[in-house]
Amino acid sequence: MKQLLAAWGLLAFILPAAAEDRRWVDLTHDLSSESVFWPTAAPFRMTTDFAGMTERGYYYSAYSFATAEHGGTHLDAPVHFAKGRRSVDQVPLDQLIGDAVVVDVSAAAARDRDYRIQVRDFQAWEARYGRIPVGSIVLLRTGFSRYWPDAADYLGTDLRGLAGVAALSFPGLHEEAATWLATERKIASVGIDTASIDYGKSRDFAAHVALMTRNIPAFENITNLEQLPATGVFVVALPVKIRGGSGGPLRIVARAGEP
Amino acid sequence: MKQLLAAWGLLAFILPAAAEDRRWVDLTHDLSSESVFWPTAAPFRMTTDFAGMTERGYYYSAYSFATAEHGGTHLDAPVHFAKGRRSVDQVPLDQLIGDAVVVDVSAAAARDRDYRIQVRDFQAWEARYGRIPVGSIVLLRTGFSRYWPDAADYLGTDLRGLAGVAALSFPGLHEEAATWLATERKIASVGIDTASIDYGKSRDFAAHVALMTRNIPAFENITNLEQLPATGVFVVALPVKIRGGSGGPLRIVARAGEP
Repeated sequence: MKQLLAAWGLLAFILPAAAEDRRWVDLTHDLSSESVFWPTAAPFRMTTDFAGMTERGYYYSAYSFATAEHGGTHLDAPVHFAKGRRSVDQVPLDQLIGDAVVVDVSAAAARDRDYRIQVRDFQAWEARYGRIPVGSIVLLRTGFSRYWPDAADYLGTDLRGLAGVAALSFPGLHEEAATWLATERKIASVGIDTASIDYGKSRDFAAHVALMTRNIPAFENITNLEQLPATGVFVVALPVKIRGGSGGPLRIVARAGEP
Repeated sequence: MKQLLAAWGLLAFILPAAAEDRRWVDLTHDLSSESVFWPTAAPFRMTTDFAGMTERGYYYSAYSFATAEHGGTHLDAPVHFAKGRRSVDQVPLDQLIGDAVVVDVSAAAARDRDYRIQVRDFQAWEARYGRIPVGSIVLLRTGFSRYWPDAADYLGTDLRGLAGVAALSFPGLHEEAATWLATERKIASVGIDTASIDYGKSRDFAAHVALMTRNIPAFENITNLEQLPATGVFVVALPVKIRGGSGGPLRIVARAGEP
């Protein structure tokens, strides 16, 4: 009888959760000539192939576009920073789809725009929410998404070219923390609401190297993380499937609750 | 007591299903210069921005690419064929993510490569599997994906330009069936494993117009539908979020079982 009552209680818990309308949140910036791109990358360009009424009497519009793989909301495939590692079309779906945690470091990033997320930030998160599960997608919330698409605020500079690179200033993930996530927590992938998983002042991209030599991809320039809870998040992150690509435009969505 | 036993029975059914490892299937062709594009569209072009060891001692590779919105596995947004309707960035997530049905017309398409899927094909499907639910994603399996990327077999021609358009020959959805899906079944979206939701010989793109005037998007050049059951399929179809785009490269995945 106790078992039956327990079952009944569990059912009463499961059924409303299953029926609940769990809203998907779009973590993607739209892509346009206003999108923030790396200072050395050409901006997103769109050309009109046709837009208007055709001779046959139906409306038709179609465009072409040209873009760097690593502009706007995008995925860095491991081969972006690690020779011989996976290209964007080779990243397994289980590194793109799965349970996620959201780690909020926006207070530290507000105090110091060159902040690097430390192992102790994750330890503090775990003290509150429990151990980051193996295979997690780890989403890092610096709060910098609120500056998009103002490059001066978002990147720390609106200069272009090498002068722009030299003036970059935004928070990122410390290489020690990147290594810790990869080796101690065996995460699937990592995402951030800045232009790079390494902080703006990085010259050696050590967090990229630490992750990508271990075949861990990164999602960059994501947004709307404030709409998600810290745990119990399910993410679907689907990049354009470019054969041999080092990355590419990414559409990433999430919702609270395990599907 | 009867209720409790029923609850217990239901639990025994739910829990193993939830624990089961439901494999995601990638319904996306990879994108390269070999991808099948419409005869009048320029092929996919990729350029190397950098690939090799840097002076600072880390490996780095990055590429840029240029493409028509409607090449390879892609989404047609309603504005592609309907003035004032939604662009690709405006398509609601609930038309991109949700329950799907798979309708197999590969036998008819094998007999007649200009076959148009009829209302009676859906009625036959419903006689076997039940009524297509409101809000469904309807995936049409013609079997033509097996010809990819051989344009002569897949499109019916490897000619390019207007001569290629004139020689197109592949199956699609009849406009009456498109209207029926939109108005009688109120579907969310539709997908097909050919280059177009209209058959190759179409000159008025009537299925596109029927769907898109009603704000229903289409997924084209999808693949691997033979790996899915007819019902109980969950689809996530995420296009590149091009501001104002008439469509764009799509990554689409599916798995058996409701999440």
